[in-house]
Amino acid sequence: MMPKTTPAEVTRVAGGERRQVADSVVTEAPLEIRLAGVPIAVVMRTPGDDAELVRGFALTEAIVLHPREMAEARPLPDPEGNRWELVLADGVSVDPERFRRNLYTTSSCGVCGKASIDAVRIAAPPALPGPVVSPDLLLGLPARMRARQEAFTATGGLHAAALFTPYGDLRELREDVGRHNAVDKVVGAAAATGWPLGESILLVSGRVSFEMVQKAAVAGVPVVCGVSAPSSLAIELAAELGTTVVGFLRDAGFNVYTGAGRVT
Amino acid sequence: MMPKTTPAEVTRVAGGERRQVADSVVTEAPLEIRLAGVPIAVVMRTPGDDAELVRGFALTEAIVLHPREMAEARPLPDPEGNRWELVLADGVSVDPERFRRNLYTTSSCGVCGKASIDAVRIAAPPALPGPVVSPDLLLGLPARMRARQEAFTATGGLHAAALFTPYGDLRELREDVGRHNAVDKVVGAAAATGWPLGESILLVSGRVSFEMVQKAAVAGVPVVCGVSAPSSLAIELAAELGTTVVGFLRDAGFNVYTGAGRVT
Repeated sequence: MMPKTTPAEVTRVAGGERRQVADSVVTEAPLEIRLAGVPIAVVMRTPGDDAELVRGFALTEAIVLHPREMAEARPLPDPEGNRWELVLADGVSVDPERFRRNLYTTSSCGVCGKASIDAVRIAAPPALPGPVVSPDLLLGLPARMRARQEAFTATGGLHAAALFTPYGDLRELREDVGRHNAVDKVVGAAAATGWPLGESILLVSGRVSFEMVQKAAVAGVPVVCGVSAPSSLAIELAAELGTTVVGFLRDAGFNVYTGAGRVT
Repeated sequence: MMPKTTPAEVTRVAGGERRQVADSVVTEAPLEIRLAGVPIAVVMRTPGDDAELVRGFALTEAIVLHPREMAEARPLPDPEGNRWELVLADGVSVDPERFRRNLYTTSSCGVCGKASIDAVRIAAPPALPGPVVSPDLLLGLPARMRARQEAFTATGGLHAAALFTPYGDLRELREDVGRHNAVDKVVGAAAATGWPLGESILLVSGRVSFEMVQKAAVAGVPVVCGVSAPSSLAIELAAELGTTVVGFLRDAGFNVYTGAGRVT
């Protein structure tokens, strides 16, 4: 497998000086996902936790509707480990019509490659009641995530996603060069252990986009928090589905855009 | 047309208090691009400069190979202004084989929806010689970009891309909820005026990904700078094509990862 960081020879220019330094950058490499031998998507990701990425991607893009529909994610013969196969559970078959639609909706950014606006929305169920949390609990989440973000400090080029329990305990953290991959990886990791996503809180290191809310909702996550701003369409979709969206979650405070009933 | 920002009613929690405030968020809405009546892509973007987005997207995704191959980008009947048609110039026809391949490569993140790793790379020409610039010139670019980023301070949720002349003058700046859209918009704006992209410097507010380098290279931009880190594949592609990649371009200094010959 390719390493998560790649050595880079860099010309560093600072303070009027210029010197050659050995540095490292985040690895970005394509991951091809196959289903029944057919390539269904390529996502640009940071290598590592690839089985979780495949499982999480399948869940958040509604290729499967429940973790138990997947038997395993396994690597295919490939010198760089960039080809993976999603194997469905015995007796599970993907409805060809749904499968075909997903050919157009599967992507690391969720809406790319879709050939019609009507195809943008993946059917997501209304959010479950989910947890009710205190402001203090939410305010403590970013520091807990940062404390675990070791790779970020190493290269400065990664997005992070973390899943917390309703008590604020960090359950899963993943980082990736692609923001949606980080979400897929935590979802895939949680799903593999049977952990109840319907009781979880998702925190992402950046913006909350339409697609981030969609991925969370499809996977059943009821609370989505971002360190930065949400978009208009993210709020619109969250309001429709009953998902809680918290933005600008930082030390000083935060904004609740939808689903404020889950915050005491 | 939809406005660039959307009003949002927000529950603001800070300092132990909770109050309702009127806020605004960046608008995110799908833009459908059609060619000869056929939908070829949907990108999630911030409304505004849509004609430039369509033109720039067509250029950076190699749907057309030169600005003169496009006659116009025009809105189609749609209540929200989210459907656009790219009209090719008289006598220009898109090679069906190239067009078909582009069906899989066109997207706001460039690699999504591609059904094979082999399809990831869009053929990009080697970079032109381009400008040779001083460290001081590069160090001055972020401040010039920030000074023009009014929308960012308004909502906090936008990515920016700017095109500069070899003398450091800011020629085009665009902001968008999608980082690649911001690049497509400045490229489309420059292309519409016949401005020589082969002599330009691109600065983006965030990371430099594989796809950012690819879009720049396909459009003929020889120098790509980011305020944050580049990825391994961005560097690999830039080295292959002769593109200069500058990362961590901030007040204190910067790193040159490839094409250091263009920095004095």
